[in-house]
Amino acid sequence: MSKIPVGILGATGMVGQMYISLLADHPWFEVRYVAASPRSAGKSYAQAAAGRWHLDNFSSSAPILHSVGEIMVEDANDISKALEARKTGRCDFVFSALEMEKEQIKMLEESYAAAGIPVVSNASAHRWTTDVPMLIAEVNPHHAELITIQRKKRGWDKGFIVVKPNCSIQSYTTPLWALMQKGYEIKRLLAVTLQAVSGAGYPGVSSWDMIDNIVPYIGGEEEKSEQEPLKIFGVINQEGILINAAEPQISAHCNRVPVSSGHTACVSLEFGAKKPSIEEVKKIWTEFRALPQEAHFPTAPECPIIVREEADRPQPRKDRDMDKSMAVIVGRIRPCPVFDLRFAGLSHNTIRGAAGGGVLSAELLKHKGYI
Amino acid sequence: MSKIPVGILGATGMVGQMYISLLADHPWFEVRYVAASPRSAGKSYAQAAAGRWHLDNFSSSAPILHSVGEIMVEDANDISKALEARKTGRCDFVFSALEMEKEQIKMLEESYAAAGIPVVSNASAHRWTTDVPMLIAEVNPHHAELITIQRKKRGWDKGFIVVKPNCSIQSYTTPLWALMQKGYEIKRLLAVTLQAVSGAGYPGVSSWDMIDNIVPYIGGEEEKSEQEPLKIFGVINQEGILINAAEPQISAHCNRVPVSSGHTACVSLEFGAKKPSIEEVKKIWTEFRALPQEAHFPTAPECPIIVREEADRPQPRKDRDMDKSMAVIVGRIRPCPVFDLRFAGLSHNTIRGAAGGGVLSAELLKHKGYI
Amino acid sequence: MSKIPVGILGATGMVGQMYISLLADHPWFEVRYVAASPRSAGKSYAQAAAGRWHLDNFSSSAPILHSVGEIMVEDANDISKALEARKTGRCDFVFSALEMEKEQIKMLEESYAAAGIPVVSNASAHRWTTDVPMLIAEVNPHHAELITIQRKKRGWDKGFIVVKPNCSIQSYTTPLWALMQKGYEIKRLLAVTLQAVSGAGYPGVSSWDMIDNIVPYIGGEEEKSEQEPLKIFGVINQEGILINAAEPQISAHCNRVPVSSGHTACVSLEFGAKKPSIEEVKKIWTEFRALPQEAHFPTAPECPIIVREEADRPQPRKDRDMDKSMAVIVGRIRPCPVFDLRFAGLSHNTIRGAAGGGVLSAELLKHKGYI
Amino acid sequence: MSKIPVGILGATGMVGQMYISLLADHPWFEVRYVAASPRSAGKSYAQAAAGRWHLDNFSSSAPILHSVGEIMVEDANDISKALEARKTGRCDFVFSALEMEKEQIKMLEESYAAAGIPVVSNASAHRWTTDVPMLIAEVNPHHAELITIQRKKRGWDKGFIVVKPNCSIQSYTTPLWALMQKGYEIKRLLAVTLQAVSGAGYPGVSSWDMIDNIVPYIGGEEEKSEQEPLKIFGVINQEGILINAAEPQISAHCNRVPVSSGHTACVSLEFGAKKPSIEEVKKIWTEFRALPQEAHFPTAPECPIIVREEADRPQPRKDRDMDKSMAVIVGRIRPCPVFDLRFAGLSHNTIRGAAGGGVLSAELLKHKGYI
Repeated sequence: MSKIPVGILGATGMVGQMYISLLADHPWFEVRYVAASPRSAGKSYAQAAAGRWHLDNFSSSAPILHSVGEIMVEDANDISKALEARKTGRCDFVFSALEMEKEQIKMLEESYAAAGIPVVSNASAHRWTTDVPMLIAEVNPHHAELITIQRKKRGWDKGFIVVKPNCSIQSYTTPLWALMQKGYEIKRLLAVTLQAVSGAGYPGVSSWDMIDNIVPYIGGEEEKSEQEPLKIFGVINQEGILINAAEPQISAHCNRVPVSSGHTACVSLEFGAKKPSIEEVKKIWTEFRALPQEAHFPTAPECPIIVREEADRPQPRKDRDMDKSMAVIVGRIRPCPVFDLRFAGLSHNTIRGAAGGGVLSAELLKHKGYI
Repeated sequence: MSKIPVGILGATGMVGQMYISLLADHPWFEVRYVAASPRSAGKSYAQAAAGRWHLDNFSSSAPILHSVGEIMVEDANDISKALEARKTGRCDFVFSALEMEKEQIKMLEESYAAAGIPVVSNASAHRWTTDVPMLIAEVNPHHAELITIQRKKRGWDKGFIVVKPNCSIQSYTTPLWALMQKGYEIKRLLAVTLQAVSGAGYPGVSSWDMIDNIVPYIGGEEEKSEQEPLKIFGVINQEGILINAAEPQISAHCNRVPVSSGHTACVSLEFGAKKPSIEEVKKIWTEFRALPQEAHFPTAPECPIIVREEADRPQPRKDRDMDKSMAVIVGRIRPCPVFDLRFAGLSHNTIRGAAGGGVLSAELLKHKGYI
Repeated sequence: MSKIPVGILGATGMVGQMYISLLADHPWFEVRYVAASPRSAGKSYAQAAAGRWHLDNFSSSAPILHSVGEIMVEDANDISKALEARKTGRCDFVFSALEMEKEQIKMLEESYAAAGIPVVSNASAHRWTTDVPMLIAEVNPHHAELITIQRKKRGWDKGFIVVKPNCSIQSYTTPLWALMQKGYEIKRLLAVTLQAVSGAGYPGVSSWDMIDNIVPYIGGEEEKSEQEPLKIFGVINQEGILINAAEPQISAHCNRVPVSSGHTACVSLEFGAKKPSIEEVKKIWTEFRALPQEAHFPTAPECPIIVREEADRPQPRKDRDMDKSMAVIVGRIRPCPVFDLRFAGLSHNTIRGAAGGGVLSAELLKHKGYI
Repeated sequence: MSKIPVGILGATGMVGQMYISLLADHPWFEVRYVAASPRSAGKSYAQAAAGRWHLDNFSSSAPILHSVGEIMVEDANDISKALEARKTGRCDFVFSALEMEKEQIKMLEESYAAAGIPVVSNASAHRWTTDVPMLIAEVNPHHAELITIQRKKRGWDKGFIVVKPNCSIQSYTTPLWALMQKGYEIKRLLAVTLQAVSGAGYPGVSSWDMIDNIVPYIGGEEEKSEQEPLKIFGVINQEGILINAAEPQISAHCNRVPVSSGHTACVSLEFGAKKPSIEEVKKIWTEFRALPQEAHFPTAPECPIIVREEADRPQPRKDRDMDKSMAVIVGRIRPCPVFDLRFAGLSHNTIRGAAGGGVLSAELLKHKGYI
């Protein structure tokens, strides 16, 4: 089987680089098209990324970059270039890792979709567009059917837009879902996050603020953390409209901490009338499997939720890369004196929470025949 | 006025050193007696502390140490030495910064008290001894009257024991108290702490665990955080017995983060029926003053609670040393979608939360005539 | 005595803020004029600095800022404003902490000087201008006499420009000078620096590069480190021209490390024929005093060079603030198997190496009657 | 081919764990015997390592540990257990990662060798024993022939001892050797190292010393760094005696920095009369291959020396894991104003510099028929 050719929008940024790294040996997809800002356009990718390559242990001289490195970077604003690539079999769909003004991204992603190029987006621009699904492949793969409605409503033929949620909620959303699936309602939730600096891109957070220090604030992050799970847990009604969930009520406090990658969340939650025991929670999480596991998507973790029994885990540097950096690691599962259950969750923010999650969504969409 | 001579038990440890640093120019107290482990006994303090001096910017060659440095270290287990010092006017009372087994500390502190030497302790050993007050000078100075009962019950003449609470609760206990004093009941509270490594003493936490990492667990810390405020908020009944408060219910999750000093807490709380507005909360905290301020104790911060309006404060490195490192700095005061109020609090753990708090308690006890 | 009114150019940047902090209680100088970029112009200093205040433990709500905070920020490019301030007794001279293109700074500082306003500059723009002295008050105070030549040559009446050297050389230049003064020639020198992030200003170095990492490169820093000492050690000949020293030959390797403030240097050096013993080196450094000490300048450290005997000192967090953050701390003084002498030096880069050094230079210039 | 069964002495320490991790899928060797302190003896390895497992992303629940985890830990002091294991085909030779007093290690390793069990040691105890080779497989594989002399002299039959050098010299010794092999004498060398905390084992360096700080001293490290290369570069004379090299003269200054793994060295060196150009140096290093590459040892890096052309590389977090964490990464190759050549080198201290280097030595010894 020949691989599906894909493009990366925003290919020179930190998430764009991560897409290129993760797709280096992908069995289904192959990067054949890269676009970025006008400043990079016209250079080879190797030239454009020179001196701006941020990934650990994936050298800008790695073999993969001999192929991607030679691709000429196009201007992401110029859709005609992508269409040309599409015609010549170099771009069946795109991953969007655009870093621009929100409104600009919104319009640009719509233009790609309207032109027939599906967009799997990492950006927050379309997260609250009602006909755009916000996917976590293990949680709401069925929301992909919004694509049909989206296309119909907008008169799009082949193109569409799907998005992934914010990286800050990934360390607890799948665990919540696993419990909800077993019939346990979750009424209220308090989450305090300790977030890695890579979540802010590059250069992102100043080192002056991250030496012997933490910053108890990340602009816009708490609002996203409180609202996005409600869309993900939403139900598509008979008219094909996604109705957001009413619960759980969420309170999020987001901190920036001196960690390179890996967001940790300290979570307390209140169940409805039916309350699982601690042992039952551990069993549900350990045994949780979903479509990506059942259908063996290449980027799927073997275990979406890994339960750690040690008193002091998960820890970001030590655990973030378990199971291809795609698992959610949970630990410290214990009763809460105020609510019902407490735990600590960890997920790799630029892989599970960004590029890896995007690739997994694309695998889901291919599996379902949308691409 | 000649100064009151004081002794330090555990003088060579990190908190012991901090006591010596803080008392260097104290107007009321003067360190004249130092005791530590048998290993240090017989050496001058300068010799005993050589190569183990951990404080920033307070050199082991600082002038103060020319006087304290020449004092010969005694064995803290040998109370006869302290009694001798008492007789010769070198030790009216002691600060205990002992680092031993809990039961050992418990007995040793009792022996000092029984021998007539008051003990102001930083150790957790006697925190749950019912007739021992756990003091925060701004919150429960009236608990000092337990000393009378303690002496009577135990047949002690001049000696007594008072303790200070754990450093992890200092960044929110005073703010809670300020609200309670204005008639606002606090029913429930969730606190997630981001605690500095100096809280674990020296060498304490391994650097292997604090580089590009956080540890979501501190042994014993959550239990202390959940229970100690209830004793502090307790009421002494007519029989002179301290009855612990029944509320607030507290859930604490304690994390260790790569910060040298300064514990941060992210707090969400639920009021009783009467709920203050955000503006009222800020006003109450800004205006809060207590006995240490009114009586102008030398170590008292001018403002016990400093309200920061910037979106991203308090931050440990930048704010921990405000107002002699003795203030609680609060920020991010905002409504909570799940409970009523959210905020972030910060206090310096080895000063406000340890040695500085101990000195302030001693000032309170002198003010009240107990020493 | 009424204080001399001074202005700060680039007042909102990190070094500008440090000037305001250091001058808060200065006995000779008082900040009455502040200028920054056009973006800040027209706002009060408090407004302009809001949300951009970077100093530790010197709150933007500190009392000093009630006076400086009310001053209206002017556009630093508009010299007429400074002249007006001069006329109305608000600006006798300026500290320049400008952050612009080098050529722009060069011209702008000349314009101030030409207009009669002396400039004590932190910028590198004029460091190699031959008639501009590069001052370390303890090392080459006599270079101040270049001012007379500078004024004459350029036809300036009251204005002049002096600069300070780069922060990276401060931890060893004074120690070298102390040895040279005692007749020990230094032929060759290798210095490897471990530099703090505050040297790059704010936001400066990305936290992505400073977590679990060091960066073995700082643009332009090695050239400055190798050349600037030669100007500082230079001699003014009979024509009044400063002739740079020919020695020592210097090789510098500059690293950025995860330290907030405090540059460390590991230095190996080769003497001429006459070589001091290790004990002699320590004695020379410990006893070294210069004009700022003899004339008791307010910002002068009591001991310009502090010798530490502990095996593992100096350390940046623990030692950088000794003696008002103005001393050079040296340790690990030992023979070098390749050259003659090895040691580690430390100095506070934004105080001794920037704003504090600038204030000390101004004190020198006042002492000598130039301002 | 069935795998060679190997034992690990000191299996529960940080380097011991790294051996187990690296040998998890090794094609030639298989861990069948583990020994540690008496405290661990009698437990399964999984039990003994529980709560003390320090490696990143190699969970104590990783599949490998299902096999090694079940092995019962023996007392490393009890050689009879190892002999028994040898007889039953579970221990043909041992890797020593013992953490004891130097003299104890020395005797214990000799006892294993005398009993017929070869020892590939990570410890420093035997580094200066004249008939014990100190091996870097790419540099002095021919020193393995000392084994024959060692056995003969000591009357040992099958047993022997080889050691690896200190981790601090690995980032420049191979590059030096590559130049020496091309006929360039190196007369003098100054190396300043920035060493990771994992070099000190666990718990090793206190986090109090590694937050916003560096420590300009590591006990014993400078002496090792200055002397060990001379043994490695030594020549075996006709009597079979290893004569240490007389050059280069080395001056080392060793710093501890807040990096988890990866030692960086800033090196300046002086050539003899014949001096290569910068381009020639780069070419020699890029093209350098040695026996491990030619004979395709499983743990050998493809390129022993990787030359980075970016201005700011190598960096520890970003580059330490290149080429299986076994390469030396060099960058900033440029002329030195004092000597001839300057560069920055990096190697992974617990892999290339410890367990990985030990495994590579064992591969060399198998290749040469010693095991």
